[in-house]
Amino acid sequence: MKSEFFEQTRQYKDRVLKQIGLYLEINHTAALYEPVRYALQAGGKLLRPILAQVTCEAVGGKSQDVLDAAAALELVHVFSLVHDDIMDNDDMRRGRTTVHKKWDINAAILAGDAILIKAYEAVGRVNPIYLTRVLNNFSGAILQVCEGQALDIEFEKRDDVTLDDYFSMIDRKTARLFSLACELGAILGGGSEEQIAAMCTYGMKLGRAFQVQDDLLDVLADQETLGKDVGSDIQEDKKTFLMLYTRQHANDEQLQQLKSFAGREHLAREDMQQVIAILDRIGTIAAARQEVKNALEEARVSLALLAESNSRELLSKLLDMLEQRTF
Amino acid sequence: MKSEFFEQTRQYKDRVLKQIGLYLEINHTAALYEPVRYALQAGGKLLRPILAQVTCEAVGGKSQDVLDAAAALELVHVFSLVHDDIMDNDDMRRGRTTVHKKWDINAAILAGDAILIKAYEAVGRVNPIYLTRVLNNFSGAILQVCEGQALDIEFEKRDDVTLDDYFSMIDRKTARLFSLACELGAILGGGSEEQIAAMCTYGMKLGRAFQVQDDLLDVLADQETLGKDVGSDIQEDKKTFLMLYTRQHANDEQLQQLKSFAGREHLAREDMQQVIAILDRIGTIAAARQEVKNALEEARVSLALLAESNSRELLSKLLDMLEQRTF
Repeated sequence: MKSEFFEQTRQYKDRVLKQIGLYLEINHTAALYEPVRYALQAGGKLLRPILAQVTCEAVGGKSQDVLDAAAALELVHVFSLVHDDIMDNDDMRRGRTTVHKKWDINAAILAGDAILIKAYEAVGRVNPIYLTRVLNNFSGAILQVCEGQALDIEFEKRDDVTLDDYFSMIDRKTARLFSLACELGAILGGGSEEQIAAMCTYGMKLGRAFQVQDDLLDVLADQETLGKDVGSDIQEDKKTFLMLYTRQHANDEQLQQLKSFAGREHLAREDMQQVIAILDRIGTIAAARQEVKNALEEARVSLALLAESNSRELLSKLLDMLEQRTF
Repeated sequence: MKSEFFEQTRQYKDRVLKQIGLYLEINHTAALYEPVRYALQAGGKLLRPILAQVTCEAVGGKSQDVLDAAAALELVHVFSLVHDDIMDNDDMRRGRTTVHKKWDINAAILAGDAILIKAYEAVGRVNPIYLTRVLNNFSGAILQVCEGQALDIEFEKRDDVTLDDYFSMIDRKTARLFSLACELGAILGGGSEEQIAAMCTYGMKLGRAFQVQDDLLDVLADQETLGKDVGSDIQEDKKTFLMLYTRQHANDEQLQQLKSFAGREHLAREDMQQVIAILDRIGTIAAARQEVKNALEEARVSLALLAESNSRELLSKLLDMLEQRTF
């Protein structure tokens, strides 16, 4: 199921990568553009620019109409990764050394800045008729991404974070960029106001499902499929959906048991099985699954405003895929 | 002379500060916006937004037409200061603790990002007729600021930096933002293409004069007027105009003498007098003064395309003021 969606959107991905390549062709300041190129060559699923193109077509537009905006979305996503990796002091990203580890913090700050500005350069290429709206939505959304990141950092130091706080954080840090992608696709595809609003909702709900899935997979996935350490959220005592739900619903004994796993250097397969067993008993796993299911259902409802088309089918397939996501 | 220009542009400054204040009224993520507000309250001369308004009026527009763009220019200037201070590991800025020292590097990265995005939000408010052009010029110029900063950092590690390299660096890091200010003023004021090009040149030359003056003042100013340590460029062995000119024109003995001052913790008044005497003998001081004079003269020539007006008078006064600048 996973591969079907990505196979059928392969051309969308290639088109965006080519477009981003064009933006970077001419320039001479190697000290700035080497780290920029490196960051942009990291690969990834390019889900946001794919979404922008599919939603554009789903409201009757041509994917070409949204190509620059789609490229801007990927650029802004990479900008946030480069700066977040500095803040989180992460050494690896998508199987490669992070920019600030390969060069240094200064190079990574500047590379992130330049990628953000490149994103705005791409926004500057959209149809002038839509430019004011696109630019304002774009800036508003990226500000929310920054707010989400600030909250995420703040949460690490706080002990009173609630599930509401959590959703307020991931809606900004993760979901808003998915929602922006779908919104811009619908705007630049010439969709109606109702369709634009519906696509915006589709993206928000999809993003929320995506993030709670992410939290779930950190516990449930097997090492190789995930591509990073399983249980890292638990080791780092992160404020994920699972952790916050557990805090609210576990008894003292269960909390004590779980606490013994936090802060460890390594969690073995048997440790993880114990953790999963405890979370299962509390009802955390079921609650997270339900949360994902609800969000995907809400996303599915917003597709009803679209006429039947291959693109709408793709948006629906993406929801199916997320429901069964293991990557 | 200094106070006359700033007295007569006082209203322009106040208007921009008020405008920036409006942008920051509504928001709830204290972790992000406290450092943002702090950075924006640092004061400063607001020369760039003042220039945008004066050039706008000088081509026949109303300063109101350029107000959002003017605010964007100040925001982007502060963004670059916040990130540069991290990179240069500076503790103080305009007599206050820098953002990354008052909070931490993460807060300063995020605050800088948010201020840059706020700048683009402000750009999004300009007259839609001009938006594509303004946005593209804005992004292109800010990218150059990043390139200039990358070069500046690179130069620290290089021993073969020439005066040409130096001008290529300061034209991007410093002059382009002045030039953007004048360019946007002329565009949004409805100036002709010739006037826009002339204002662009005025800003570039002004910016170049401003930077070489800066290099000069680091040696010639007295401590109190400058508001920071005199001779800090020499202590840090920075690639300034003075230093690069000196390298090309000094004999071995003079170079040896100057070298003994680099890397010192503190340069006393007598040390500085010795340095100045050596630079005088080499011809460095005279060459820097000539460079400033030439740039200001070129800037003055570009004013010829403007009809006589109070605003053109102000642009001319600014050149006079820079020629005698001691701050």
